[in-house]
Formats: sequence, C-alpha cells, structure tokens
Amino acid sequence: MPQNIYDDPEFFAGYSRLPRSVGGLPSAPEWPRLQAMLPDVRGLRIVDLGCGFGWFCRWARENGAADVLGIDLSENMLARARAATSDDAITYQQHDLATVALPKGRFDLAYSSLAIHYLEDVARLFAEVHAALIPGGHFVFSTEHPILMASRRAEWLTHLDGAPTWPVDGYLAEGTRTTEWFRPGVVKYHRTLATTLNALIGAGFAIAHVEEYGPTPEQIAAQPAWAKERERPMFLLVSARRN
Amino acid sequence: MPQNIYDDPEFFAGYSRLPRSVGGLPSAPEWPRLQAMLPDVRGLRIVDLGCGFGWFCRWARENGAADVLGIDLSENMLARARAATSDDAITYQQHDLATVALPKGRFDLAYSSLAIHYLEDVARLFAEVHAALIPGGHFVFSTEHPILMASRRAEWLTHLDGAPTWPVDGYLAEGTRTTEWFRPGVVKYHRTLATTLNALIGAGFAIAHVEEYGPTPEQIAAQPAWAKERERPMFLLVSARRN
Repeated sequence: MPQNIYDDPEFFAGYSRLPRSVGGLPSAPEWPRLQAMLPDVRGLRIVDLGCGFGWFCRWARENGAADVLGIDLSENMLARARAATSDDAITYQQHDLATVALPKGRFDLAYSSLAIHYLEDVARLFAEVHAALIPGGHFVFSTEHPILMASRRAEWLTHLDGAPTWPVDGYLAEGTRTTEWFRPGVVKYHRTLATTLNALIGAGFAIAHVEEYGPTPEQIAAQPAWAKERERPMFLLVSARRN
Repeated sequence: MPQNIYDDPEFFAGYSRLPRSVGGLPSAPEWPRLQAMLPDVRGLRIVDLGCGFGWFCRWARENGAADVLGIDLSENMLARARAATSDDAITYQQHDLATVALPKGRFDLAYSSLAIHYLEDVARLFAEVHAALIPGGHFVFSTEHPILMASRRAEWLTHLDGAPTWPVDGYLAEGTRTTEWFRPGVVKYHRTLATTLNALIGAGFAIAHVEEYGPTPEQIAAQPAWAKERERPMFLLVSARRN
C-alpha cells in the first residue's frame, strides 16, 4: 500500500495553502531555474510525473505543447487538476510512480517536480521514463536535496558564534526519513546525490545539467527571511537526455 | 603566485607522515573505489594531475600503462617521486594546474587525486584535460566533497541528543576556504557539486559515474574511529568520458 499523504485531509488542507498550491509555478521559487532547464515545449508530447494540481500541465499547453499526460497518486489533487481545465489535450491518470507503466516511446519530455523523494526505488522509475521517451527525449526533474533530507534531526543548529548551520548526518545511510510536514509521519526516501545520478546514467540517460537550488540574491531581497536558504541547497534540479 | 603549501617545510613534514604518504595507494581509504572507476590501464598513455610522490604513476606502470606523465607544483614532491623510480616511461614535470598546458590528443586517461580543490577555476583545467585526451578517453578524479568544505567552521557539532552531525553552511557561496592542516592558512576552493559536474559537461565530457566516498563497513570494522566518516561524504569521486 503506497503512502498517499496528499489524500490525508489534514495534510491536503495544509498543502493546499502553500504559496505554490495557490499561485502555481510563479510562486515556486525554484521554477525559474527549472524552467531554464526545459527544452522549448512547443509541439512536444509531455508526461508530468506527480502532477499535483496540474499547474505544469496547463503551463505546458499554454506554451504550445502538443499534449500532456499528468500522473498522480492523489485523487484529491487529480480532481482539482481536472476541474481546472477543459483542454482535451491534457489527460490526467491516477498511478503510483512506484509501479506506473508508461507507454513506450510516446513522449518527448518527461517532467517531475518534487515527487521522486517519495519513491524508494528511483532506478525502476528512471528505466520506465527512459522507455517512455523517444531517443533524444528530455527528462527534467526536481527533488529535495539529499543535504536537506539526510539528518535524523533536520533542524537548524547554530555554531558557537551564533550563525545558522545545517546538520548533515546519516548522509550515506540511504532509506526512509520520517518528518513532520502538515502532519506527523510523512515518509520520504533519502538517497545520495551519487545514487540519483548513477541511476540516471544506468537507465541510459546522459546528464545534461545539475542545479543545487537556493534562492537568488534578488529573491532574498524580496523575501529577506529566505537568506538562510543559501546556507545549504534545498532542491536538486537535473536535466538529462535519453541516449 | 600560486599557493605551494607542499613546499612549505612545516606542511611537507606533516603531510609526509600521513598513512597515504608512507604506504601509498593501499593506505588511501578511497583508493579501492577510485580504482574501480578506472579503465584497464594496460597500454594506456596516462597523465596524473597532482601526482605528489608518484604512487599512482608507479602503480599504473606496474599494471601495464604504456607511459605516464606526472605533474605537480611541488619540487619537494617531484624530487621524491623521481627518486622512487628509474622507469623511463614515467616522466615528472613541474607545473601549476591552474595554468598548465598539456599536449593535445596525447593521453588515453587523465587521473587526479585530491588536487582540484586547490584550484579556483576547474573549468579551465577540464577544458585542458579534454583537449589532451583522445576521443573516448577517460578522466577519473577525486576531490574533497563540497559537504566537507562548505562550512565556515568545519568542525563536528552535536545534536541535542549528543550524536555527531556535520555543519553545512555557505554551501552556495563558492570561493576560498582557509583551514588549518599541518599549518594555518591552507587555502582551498569550495564549489558546489553542481558546478563541478556542469564544468565537466561544459568542457565536453559525459559523466560516467559519481561516488560520494565514506568508509565501508569493512573499513570501519578495521578502523572503528572512522565510523563518524559515514555521517557525511569526505570525497567526491568522478569518472567521465571525453565525447
């Protein structure tokens, strides 16, 4: 039975109030960097793995994508995504990314935002994505950075001089990390950055670009509370090409 | 004027007593992982960037390499490397890796162990290495891991529960880090993992494998004091192919 926190009422209520849930892509601080790693989507056939409310699916169509398949485990999220569009070229399907079977050679671009850290086995998904892409197809995704996830007590510490520092421990001990996020007991899977990259290479992808996202100076000027988020990377962003 | 700490008498005396300085490759705990990332060296023409005492150069010849060029900035180290072999197929040259000019298309394998964290500009070196390799040539290197280097106070902290944790701060602030290692004022250059990988890709390499080294359970059984070194990765190991 997969964890389906997004269909937990308490979690869903909290998640639905996040800026990125209300405002979509422009409210996700890492979106400009992720967008810069995407190919021109005009005419592309796209699959969005963990599509949530469908913000990216709609953005892709507004920017000329031929068709978009959005996949998510959460009925709550898919219901909202379906209600937000009447575009026949956007299709939503409920699947668990741990077991999803994608059509072979069907897509030009696979996209996934902050979903794969819920997966124990990324190698299986990466192989599935590889087979679902045409040769030369693009795979662009974000995930929580392993530096953010590793510690058994992932809370800011202070140096003796009072400056904030982020704890890293258990980095090489891959596996579950249970955190509180809108509710206790949210389970994510920590894996090293090397494991993620080697799984991509092993599946037949060529790594094209890697970003370790922290807010830009401009974003910090607009949101001074984010300054601390440059101390350690929040998100890992990767673009790869199918060989 | 490049920093040449290895020709500082105090530093050199300390460094010369390290297990890896006395015992060579078998005394470097990351060597088995780095070795596993190397191609079969039989018949290969090899350049070793930051060759130190020449342990790898000699190992490569003992394992069938056609010829090996060892490059280092330190006269002290090159003198010892030269004294340790009478093999005409090993050549040692003094160059600063920040400005070295390598012969074009001359090598099948470029190797570098724990040297590039002294370099401010890896992109320049990576372009030089790319041009020095034949198409399909290998580049295998290790460097201090950015998680190890980032913090302005890189010393173990403890969680409230007393467990050791490693501080990460300033991760996204690339540039100099001044540490004490056998003497005060040793300057290294912190850069993100993404910067290193993107510099490789930008120079025309395909990333083949990435390792974030920490001691294995077997190594910890033999050296219990190393257990803490699994909390965060010490070294980044990368193999890449020239496109």
